[in-house]
Amino acid sequence: MIDCGEGAQMQLRKSRLKFSRLNHIFISHLHGDHCFGLLGLISTFGLLGRTAELHIHSPKGLEELFSPLLAFFCKNMSYRVVFHEFATKEPSVIYEDRSVAVTTIPLQHRIPCCGFLFAEKPRPNHIIREMIDFYQVPVYELNRIKNGEDFVTPEGDVIANSRLTRPSAPPRRYAYCSDTIYRKEIVQQISGVDLLFHEATFAQTESARAKETFHTTAAQAAQIALDAEVKQLVIGHFSARYENEQVLLDEAAAIFPSTILAKENLCINL
Amino acid sequence: MIDCGEGAQMQLRKSRLKFSRLNHIFISHLHGDHCFGLLGLISTFGLLGRTAELHIHSPKGLEELFSPLLAFFCKNMSYRVVFHEFATKEPSVIYEDRSVAVTTIPLQHRIPCCGFLFAEKPRPNHIIREMIDFYQVPVYELNRIKNGEDFVTPEGDVIANSRLTRPSAPPRRYAYCSDTIYRKEIVQQISGVDLLFHEATFAQTESARAKETFHTTAAQAAQIALDAEVKQLVIGHFSARYENEQVLLDEAAAIFPSTILAKENLCINL
Repeated sequence: MIDCGEGAQMQLRKSRLKFSRLNHIFISHLHGDHCFGLLGLISTFGLLGRTAELHIHSPKGLEELFSPLLAFFCKNMSYRVVFHEFATKEPSVIYEDRSVAVTTIPLQHRIPCCGFLFAEKPRPNHIIREMIDFYQVPVYELNRIKNGEDFVTPEGDVIANSRLTRPSAPPRRYAYCSDTIYRKEIVQQISGVDLLFHEATFAQTESARAKETFHTTAAQAAQIALDAEVKQLVIGHFSARYENEQVLLDEAAAIFPSTILAKENLCINL
Repeated sequence: MIDCGEGAQMQLRKSRLKFSRLNHIFISHLHGDHCFGLLGLISTFGLLGRTAELHIHSPKGLEELFSPLLAFFCKNMSYRVVFHEFATKEPSVIYEDRSVAVTTIPLQHRIPCCGFLFAEKPRPNHIIREMIDFYQVPVYELNRIKNGEDFVTPEGDVIANSRLTRPSAPPRRYAYCSDTIYRKEIVQQISGVDLLFHEATFAQTESARAKETFHTTAAQAAQIALDAEVKQLVIGHFSARYENEQVLLDEAAAIFPSTILAKENLCINL
């Protein structure tokens, strides 16, 4: 989960994702609309008898603020909440497992803030069963071949890996950037991602207000997407002044056509 | 507002009541589902530029827990949040103005907890304009007459107050009792109220569980309503195990027919 505003547990319930699948929460910055849902979520998991640790990654300060409340409201829980704090000035890998790595994207807001880049790791090639049978490749060679090596027959013939495998799907990458002033410096780090979420709090007519409050306009978000050559852009975090967000979509899509509006429980397949 | 669980600000918005009409929040006890919405509500009021003080009444502990978070998340707000803590063992008047008084109703839950009795003050009688004209009552006498005094004419005749006024509507009373174990002791204090909200977490088949967790069954809530001769009962705070709450309504209505189920944004005219 990325950020956890008030009501996150209700939205999670609506999403029909299993609560037990959530093990890591990444908090971009310590403003209420990005973390006031943590207490309720943590309590509810406790009432449900969760046993797996829940890891919360955030800029410095969250644990100190929330620990006294957890100690009071969430006594004797059946699971542990583990806080991890990250620095916000330089990109750093804050989570990694066999299939994915999460790197911070330094942003510039009124308080320390980072976005997150979720990068799948390259997966092994798919073996072509017919060719493996044809060359009588022994089972113990298969892992090496999946990972790109050629096969040498008992007769000494070298069979190129490309004859034995099909490349797996390219690793997918998702970048989440909120909240931030327009910040060209992130373009390189998010270059070519499959999906970029970027905040677009204001329309370009409010660019002065955007700068003043360290937010981005829809046009600026689209410019980032264009410069970074991302595949798709989702804009969100709209100011409440826009009753109809179409104006923001139109503004962004004029610059970067593959733009969609974020809305509650929107689900995007990559 | 009575209690303020997560999402209270969203529900308040849905209710279309003006945010500025809310000046006092009464928190029954310090469990998350009764107070986790405070932070978001307080922040949002700040963002909206509220200037009037917001008073929060609760058992001891809330200010100490929430102050550090308010200091961090709600810096430089345009209004002041004032905490008032009450003892929970004896009934006490915790709020009073010209038209209403709020008295705590000691309850018995796993932690200190009180319900609240909202009692309108008696309103002055309505003067009967035609009689006032007929007896040529001077304007400066009117307030005394509204408050029940007779009128003495310049000739010394005594005109009974009942000839000059109609009684105003009887003062209305609302009692809110949640969370609590079945507690007969409250009957006297809430006797005859126009509306009683009482928790009914479980059905009577779960009465052991209700006792163990310091909650009430629907049948017990109805018994309280019956014994206190209240005019109407609303039951709520249902355990999530009841997908269909009709079973709870049926159980209560068998004992106290004027029972209704609480639901989100339910509005009752008294």
